[in-house]
Amino acid sequence: MTAAAERPAIALDVMGGDLAPDATIEGAIRWARTTGQRAILVGDVDVMRGLLSKGGENPSAWRLESGPSTIGMGEHPVQAVRSTPDASIRRCAELVRAGEAQALVSMGNTGATMAAGVLLVGRARGVDRPGLAVLIPSREAPTLLIDVGANAEARPEHLRDFGLMGAVYSRQLIGNPKPRTGVLSIGEEATKGSPLTLAAAELLAESTLNFVGNVEPGGLFNSSVDVAVCDGFTGNLVLKAFEATAEFAVGELRAAVRRHPYTLPGVAFMYPAFRAVRRRTDYAQYGGTPLLGVNGVVIIGHGRSNAVAVENALHAAARAVDSRLVDRVADGMASISR
Amino acid sequence: MTAAAERPAIALDVMGGDLAPDATIEGAIRWARTTGQRAILVGDVDVMRGLLSKGGENPSAWRLESGPSTIGMGEHPVQAVRSTPDASIRRCAELVRAGEAQALVSMGNTGATMAAGVLLVGRARGVDRPGLAVLIPSREAPTLLIDVGANAEARPEHLRDFGLMGAVYSRQLIGNPKPRTGVLSIGEEATKGSPLTLAAAELLAESTLNFVGNVEPGGLFNSSVDVAVCDGFTGNLVLKAFEATAEFAVGELRAAVRRHPYTLPGVAFMYPAFRAVRRRTDYAQYGGTPLLGVNGVVIIGHGRSNAVAVENALHAAARAVDSRLVDRVADGMASISR
Repeated sequence: MTAAAERPAIALDVMGGDLAPDATIEGAIRWARTTGQRAILVGDVDVMRGLLSKGGENPSAWRLESGPSTIGMGEHPVQAVRSTPDASIRRCAELVRAGEAQALVSMGNTGATMAAGVLLVGRARGVDRPGLAVLIPSREAPTLLIDVGANAEARPEHLRDFGLMGAVYSRQLIGNPKPRTGVLSIGEEATKGSPLTLAAAELLAESTLNFVGNVEPGGLFNSSVDVAVCDGFTGNLVLKAFEATAEFAVGELRAAVRRHPYTLPGVAFMYPAFRAVRRRTDYAQYGGTPLLGVNGVVIIGHGRSNAVAVENALHAAARAVDSRLVDRVADGMASISR
Repeated sequence: MTAAAERPAIALDVMGGDLAPDATIEGAIRWARTTGQRAILVGDVDVMRGLLSKGGENPSAWRLESGPSTIGMGEHPVQAVRSTPDASIRRCAELVRAGEAQALVSMGNTGATMAAGVLLVGRARGVDRPGLAVLIPSREAPTLLIDVGANAEARPEHLRDFGLMGAVYSRQLIGNPKPRTGVLSIGEEATKGSPLTLAAAELLAESTLNFVGNVEPGGLFNSSVDVAVCDGFTGNLVLKAFEATAEFAVGELRAAVRRHPYTLPGVAFMYPAFRAVRRRTDYAQYGGTPLLGVNGVVIIGHGRSNAVAVENALHAAARAVDSRLVDRVADGMASISR
């Protein structure tokens, strides 16, 4: 681990993602050319060799690991990871567990990546429930929302733990010295919420965190907190609501522009703006979503990731390894008075 | 009640809403001029007289009821309704309970209106938990989402009941003969969801409803269901996420337009389009949100409602009374095999 700690080894799931393997290999090449570092590529070895050559790379300069199978969207994540020894995501997780890599990056089936992370990479010291975190674009610094789908159910202490892990991430990787942490709820008043959020707020108020109370969905966009916690069902639903609304609003705007005689001349001018908003509201641009609380860095990118998004996810993984994220999370969890 | 049944009597909470009492009185006048019917106006009688005169109306032609107090946003809804006998919303609910009105419309504190509805108007026959429903703008017909905030917790049978009440509303007021009903969840696959949604889906599948399974937030916008059910915490959060994202996306687009040299000439052309999208994503335009399962028609408008939104909410209330919504909901609930 010592040599690797100087130069982080990252296992890239080449077969995962809608645009894989072309976009994943291209992303790995881009990252290598920017940083001088090569990810460990996991996938169908012949295909990877071919794409590396096509991209102007010498395949023998890269470490290629065989993992040709993929896990489809319809499969049950835990069962599929267990029953598919040659799945690329499973091989990536095994490399992290063996200490041959410190991080894995996948654009594949989110459920399968979480399952591989929890089952094979394993929980970090002191962590009961890992949580999937996402950076929400915001007017100022992005807000970290956790959990967005690792667990469909949670107890109040899990939300407290998500707050602790999220605060470590925010401190180490976003540079907030004392991240403001809130509970995602239906009103800012302390009395508003579900039994789960009310109990979690009490635990967070007693913790060492800079707890600022409840935050509404709108607060995620205006930087009123740095970290917001919720159960995975709620977080996943809110995230999907964000994506769906952004798509709907932009679509309606396009339609409205076309419908109004006064705005029609503006259409041609609008395309760069539409593209910019799509980028701003696409959380994958922010380097993927980290699965916090596992014993290695696990970064999950959007299924639609292109080569630039893959490169960004590799950057995020390297920064997480460099900042010793996993150890810091374990330290943070150890500090809880249970 | 017989005379009133021919011409619905609607109690309007004149004091409720950010733009009250001006916008509420103006909305009542607009509705009266369109339909020839006058709502019962509940508020500060002197203020109402003054505004009616200013609007060109003869105050003595209107029924004015005294209810000069309002319930503020910071107050606990149930306690405030109980301890404020002269609150306008409480007086409205008392008129419905006494059979002097068949409907009430309020743009005031949503919690207080729900509390007044449940405590004073009372539950409809066979209903355990009333649910607040909202119409989500959609590519085709709007989707009814229920519950968006009446209860912070729900059991599976409550979600089933929301489905039954929502289907009645969709049939009677939107004209869907066999409304497609779904459970709002994090994936369309039947295995995806929380313990609550999974259990509710089983109950809905056994019911007489046209149950189509899970629906994701994006499905609300593309008319893949007519009615979607969820617990009130989830629904309220998703609704707030919709509003926040629409505002953020439109704001970002404005900013992007201003930033790009190519799009700058388009700015002036864009304002009608921005306004159109704001209208499309503002659910108050669709005539307010009905509280279903109480023993009278209760329509809650957006706090920011202007006179047109007030008029629309009065139209929605009258249509609900005309279609005998309350009786139909009770009939629907009676049909459940418990």
